[in-house]
Amino acid sequence: MKVVVALGGNALAQRRQRGTYSELVENVGFVCEELVKIIDEGHQLVITHGNGPQAGNIAVQQSSTGQVPEMPLHVIDAMTQGQIGYIIQRELGNSLRSLGSRRPVVSLLTQVLVDLADPAFGAPSKPIGPYYDRREAERIGKEMGFLFKRVGRGEKAYRRVVPSPDPKSIVESDAVSKMLASGAIVIAGGGGGIPVAKAPDGAYFGVDAVVDKDLCAEKIAESTRADSLLILTDVSKVKSDFGTPKERDIDVMTVAEAKKMLAAGQFPPGSMGPKVTACVRFVEWGGKPAAIGPLNKALRILEGAAGTRVVP
Amino acid sequence: MKVVVALGGNALAQRRQRGTYSELVENVGFVCEELVKIIDEGHQLVITHGNGPQAGNIAVQQSSTGQVPEMPLHVIDAMTQGQIGYIIQRELGNSLRSLGSRRPVVSLLTQVLVDLADPAFGAPSKPIGPYYDRREAERIGKEMGFLFKRVGRGEKAYRRVVPSPDPKSIVESDAVSKMLASGAIVIAGGGGGIPVAKAPDGAYFGVDAVVDKDLCAEKIAESTRADSLLILTDVSKVKSDFGTPKERDIDVMTVAEAKKMLAAGQFPPGSMGPKVTACVRFVEWGGKPAAIGPLNKALRILEGAAGTRVVP
Repeated sequence: MKVVVALGGNALAQRRQRGTYSELVENVGFVCEELVKIIDEGHQLVITHGNGPQAGNIAVQQSSTGQVPEMPLHVIDAMTQGQIGYIIQRELGNSLRSLGSRRPVVSLLTQVLVDLADPAFGAPSKPIGPYYDRREAERIGKEMGFLFKRVGRGEKAYRRVVPSPDPKSIVESDAVSKMLASGAIVIAGGGGGIPVAKAPDGAYFGVDAVVDKDLCAEKIAESTRADSLLILTDVSKVKSDFGTPKERDIDVMTVAEAKKMLAAGQFPPGSMGPKVTACVRFVEWGGKPAAIGPLNKALRILEGAAGTRVVP
Repeated sequence: MKVVVALGGNALAQRRQRGTYSELVENVGFVCEELVKIIDEGHQLVITHGNGPQAGNIAVQQSSTGQVPEMPLHVIDAMTQGQIGYIIQRELGNSLRSLGSRRPVVSLLTQVLVDLADPAFGAPSKPIGPYYDRREAERIGKEMGFLFKRVGRGEKAYRRVVPSPDPKSIVESDAVSKMLASGAIVIAGGGGGIPVAKAPDGAYFGVDAVVDKDLCAEKIAESTRADSLLILTDVSKVKSDFGTPKERDIDVMTVAEAKKMLAAGQFPPGSMGPKVTACVRFVEWGGKPAAIGPLNKALRILEGAAGTRVVP
């Protein structure tokens, strides 16, 4: 089977961690332990991953010095594809070799095409980077042309917000398919992909936006004609009526049920919403199952024995 | 023909530039104008590139904030493979499409294996990152375990020095060959590759070193069984007796001549030395020509009509 796995940001940077190199390597080590179980079954695998904490750290570093010009957000995305891709590639390769497997692991830098007519560009909503107080936010906003919003309580409550447009297609989808077909494990679409838009003359240019990584993973799953989409996170199951006395685990839901619950606002936009939407899109595209569940049960989720499945 | 091109750091960041995004895009634009001429002739192409100024900038940004942990040098290398690879990949793709070509351009994160028994590890020589005064250098050296050396004049004359070991092999060489064979233009080995060494148990781990990008390009040329290695820089020809009244341009030199001149110290270790060494190794490996010359004559150098050729 051809499987696309989306790794949540929390898999790579746990709460209370500072984001050191050794923490990142340790977290990736846990991820690899689970992923080798899937690879060991003979499946083809594409790995996508989040980059929120890492991109945030680079943004802090960039803004801390006046000496060096800042790079735009899409370049930071590319930098995190390098950073995280390298560590997954190296550590997963190590895990595979220690089990006697010679399967190569490669990372492909991945651009994701977005449409500037997407309504998301008129309503930036995705908070990124460090928290500032109002005065700092106003100064930086003016200087850099960034939009800030109050997103928390207290004094340092302002964060930059950027658009989160829908992914239209994966620029490097053919390369991902070819590397997969050659037997490699492919890391692609990190951080939701590097967002690019198309100019009237057909040239791609980078845009300051963040594409949801689960929706990007879904586009990769479509373009590689995957058999399964696994969205790995830190919850055991998707829940209905989350946080209320009526809360219950969902083992399986049809596309129709999932869409009804999405429309009813059961899944919050910033967290479970895009995960369920990604599953709905994948199932509607190909009639094959998608699932959401915890990283440490990745293989069991693929087998339908854990997590929440979305079915036709 | 299968051609491996090594782009010098000066092709991506010109002197007097600050290293902004728009400068980088503009510089890459010039590079692409030359590279499409080679691609347009129907050749297969691997592009390697330097990362000195970019890695230096990231190192400055990392050291400017106490809030965010610094990443080791090999991770910075991976970040620049993402950053620079993305921009070359996007802009070269744009150039090709504007000429009606559908050749895909991909960037593969590339690890380069080095040997911890390499004498370079006992004699760190490659200066990286910002300049410090003696006191700062001593403080950071103690805190981070870095070695600093006086490399210039005046007060801010100290820079971190790291080992520059010989590349042994390219970890992702099969993937590079497969992508090439599929018709893609491949960007690989940026910044000399991400240096890794092998632990006794066979696992790769990152090492803080900088592999010379021309020597890395040569290893890629061997492993992809390339027909030609082009080292592009900002000089029209390699010169003998450089800087003396006897200085003259070299149009062509045999491997034996080149080795003799290397042994006589004709080519300085930090600049022309590794370029000539890379050419010598490539010609000795496969008996095919290698050349050194200016970026703006890339195709003519490949045709043997410009630059300095090294022949069997």
